[in-house]
Amino acid sequence: MTQKVVYLDNNATTMVDPKVFEAMKPYFCELYGNPSSMHAFGGQVAKAVADAREQVKNFLGAKDAKEIIFTASGSEGDNMAIRGILEANKNKKHIITTRIEHPAVLNLYKYFEKQGYDVTYLNVDAKGNIDLNELKNAITSETALVSMMYANNETGVILPVEKAAKLVKQINPKIKIHVDAVQAAGKIPIDVKNTDIDLLTIAGHKIHAPKGIGALYVKTGTLLPAFVIGGHQERGKRAGTENVPYIIGLGKACELAQESLKYEMTEVKRLRDKLEQGILKKVYNAKVNGATENRVPNTTNIGFQYIEGELILLHLSDLGICASSGSACTSGSLEPSHVLKSMGVPFESLHGSIRFSLSRFTTEDDIDYVLKVLPDVIFKLNKISPYQKELKILEEKHR
Amino acid sequence: MTQKVVYLDNNATTMVDPKVFEAMKPYFCELYGNPSSMHAFGGQVAKAVADAREQVKNFLGAKDAKEIIFTASGSEGDNMAIRGILEANKNKKHIITTRIEHPAVLNLYKYFEKQGYDVTYLNVDAKGNIDLNELKNAITSETALVSMMYANNETGVILPVEKAAKLVKQINPKIKIHVDAVQAAGKIPIDVKNTDIDLLTIAGHKIHAPKGIGALYVKTGTLLPAFVIGGHQERGKRAGTENVPYIIGLGKACELAQESLKYEMTEVKRLRDKLEQGILKKVYNAKVNGATENRVPNTTNIGFQYIEGELILLHLSDLGICASSGSACTSGSLEPSHVLKSMGVPFESLHGSIRFSLSRFTTEDDIDYVLKVLPDVIFKLNKISPYQKELKILEEKHR
Repeated sequence: MTQKVVYLDNNATTMVDPKVFEAMKPYFCELYGNPSSMHAFGGQVAKAVADAREQVKNFLGAKDAKEIIFTASGSEGDNMAIRGILEANKNKKHIITTRIEHPAVLNLYKYFEKQGYDVTYLNVDAKGNIDLNELKNAITSETALVSMMYANNETGVILPVEKAAKLVKQINPKIKIHVDAVQAAGKIPIDVKNTDIDLLTIAGHKIHAPKGIGALYVKTGTLLPAFVIGGHQERGKRAGTENVPYIIGLGKACELAQESLKYEMTEVKRLRDKLEQGILKKVYNAKVNGATENRVPNTTNIGFQYIEGELILLHLSDLGICASSGSACTSGSLEPSHVLKSMGVPFESLHGSIRFSLSRFTTEDDIDYVLKVLPDVIFKLNKISPYQKELKILEEKHR
Repeated sequence: MTQKVVYLDNNATTMVDPKVFEAMKPYFCELYGNPSSMHAFGGQVAKAVADAREQVKNFLGAKDAKEIIFTASGSEGDNMAIRGILEANKNKKHIITTRIEHPAVLNLYKYFEKQGYDVTYLNVDAKGNIDLNELKNAITSETALVSMMYANNETGVILPVEKAAKLVKQINPKIKIHVDAVQAAGKIPIDVKNTDIDLLTIAGHKIHAPKGIGALYVKTGTLLPAFVIGGHQERGKRAGTENVPYIIGLGKACELAQESLKYEMTEVKRLRDKLEQGILKKVYNAKVNGATENRVPNTTNIGFQYIEGELILLHLSDLGICASSGSACTSGSLEPSHVLKSMGVPFESLHGSIRFSLSRFTTEDDIDYVLKVLPDVIFKLNKISPYQKELKILEEKHR
């Protein structure tokens, strides 16, 4: 791979920010003490971990650094929150979530259904939005947990989690609210302290920290059993020697994400919109999936009608362009996206939908390159599509 | 901290080997693709992860790379193994372990006792060894799991885990055997394929990989439920985007540990023995705890009779020497070590016992420095000990 790489798959994972790398670097071969050790060499490391916890706290708008638990991934945060809340409230067997959660989280609900839990999956409309009335009506005296994502990984559509949390607490303050903010963090402002959210998950590798670190916000007073039982680390909720370099890295990444929020919401958005508009203008069988307003600024999901998404991806990959269909966790399977299916995206777009996800490292050149080479890829694939009649109609409409 | 640091706390955590750091480095800011992604940029990362799994496999002597699951810590590996085996064998409620397990693991057993499990804790003798007859007699028709450490973190004493595993399987092949090899890996050869061990835990940060990565060996055919439920990663046993840099780092660290085994068992041992003999010769109230044969080559645990261990550590820390009493996970508490108590170490040594743990980065200068400054620290503390009469007797004996 010596060719140019245009990385538009930032919802799958991001590059570690060189500043994050620099912040972590001394903690590998120099300041490698165990923060739990008695000696000063370990003590200075414990101080750095405390500072990083403060940075994550500030980024999420938590009241107290004690509310931040470091995890190894978004999946671990989701498991810790969802399994923990259900274990702490064993007599309630009802969960409310949405149809468009990350497939990894949906697997968790499948597991609980097998354990005898009742799970309500809220529907979404064609724009990818939920209906708060449906949520309201779904709540029962058996409901232990409402868990939903802040922003969808495939479409970027933002769910009204704060309103949902408020509504749920008005009906029954004992129901716990978990938000999977993995795809929202760093793209839109998050400020948990003024919300009714009890638990919130983030993953470092979606905000330019490394893969293998995340955090779970747990509001003070929320009963949550240990996820890894053992030592005293993370207030006894997650045993194991702290991943010091990555904790420092996540702290720094949160600080940088906070500083870059405005840039994300203006410049990254401008590039995303340029890409989207450019494709829609040049490619007659392209159509945006989901809402174009109320979306995180870095994501666009475009259906290329009547052709195969996996084929598009392979051709783009050959040109050095990284994008994706569905989530990385389900890639390889040829099942169409459950998110787009839930939105009622018709079959002709469903199989040819591609997600482009930008970051603050995406350049104007990157977007110009995609706009230059992508149309030819699509037109080549259009030629081998069995739907020539349908494509002809689209082409004529587009003129 | 501009002064010299003599790091003799390698059983708490180790420096990342600069070669490990170099191996990981490209995977932060350059090769940052998601190994699950469809594009070639992610694909090359998936290949590197597969290579690292092979390195860990070779290091542990597993038959198949599929038997290696990457974790975030030794604690996670222990949790995954112990909780997993018990969940998969719910009808059996008896566990056998030892009194000298790591305190983090003992907390896990306390948890299971509260859940109604019966736990047998095998005793150890004055040298820190278990009695295989006691193990044999402890096995019942209810026994689901036998779990023990390979080498003790405080004394370095090696337990006969292979013999124990063989014995257990002869009595009942359905009983699963888990070995916590966190302190043995890299210090003595491990070769699981020719043993009856079903599961074995290692932690990266004890073998010069970073904190926040480990591996669990799971013998083919061992039923183990997912620890983190979600995506397909780690054969569905541990969801979450792979910690690519650290996985590469652990692979490299395993390769280097294998290459350094001979050095550990000769040169590191020589330095350890020099330190131990030097202290015993110079300090009249010093005494080795546990066996001096049958020990990992890097560890010595020395009781300084009639004085306080925490005080010794603080004085050593002021001189730039890092050592420890008990495990880092219990440091701060003034409880004497459960390991030394189990061995029947008398009170006069119990409170003044210090663990020195070396690594392949320990130098002759380090040891000479400790031998130069430590005796004065001890003699100063001896002067403020309330046990002057007893110390006098020891001093006279030593002449």
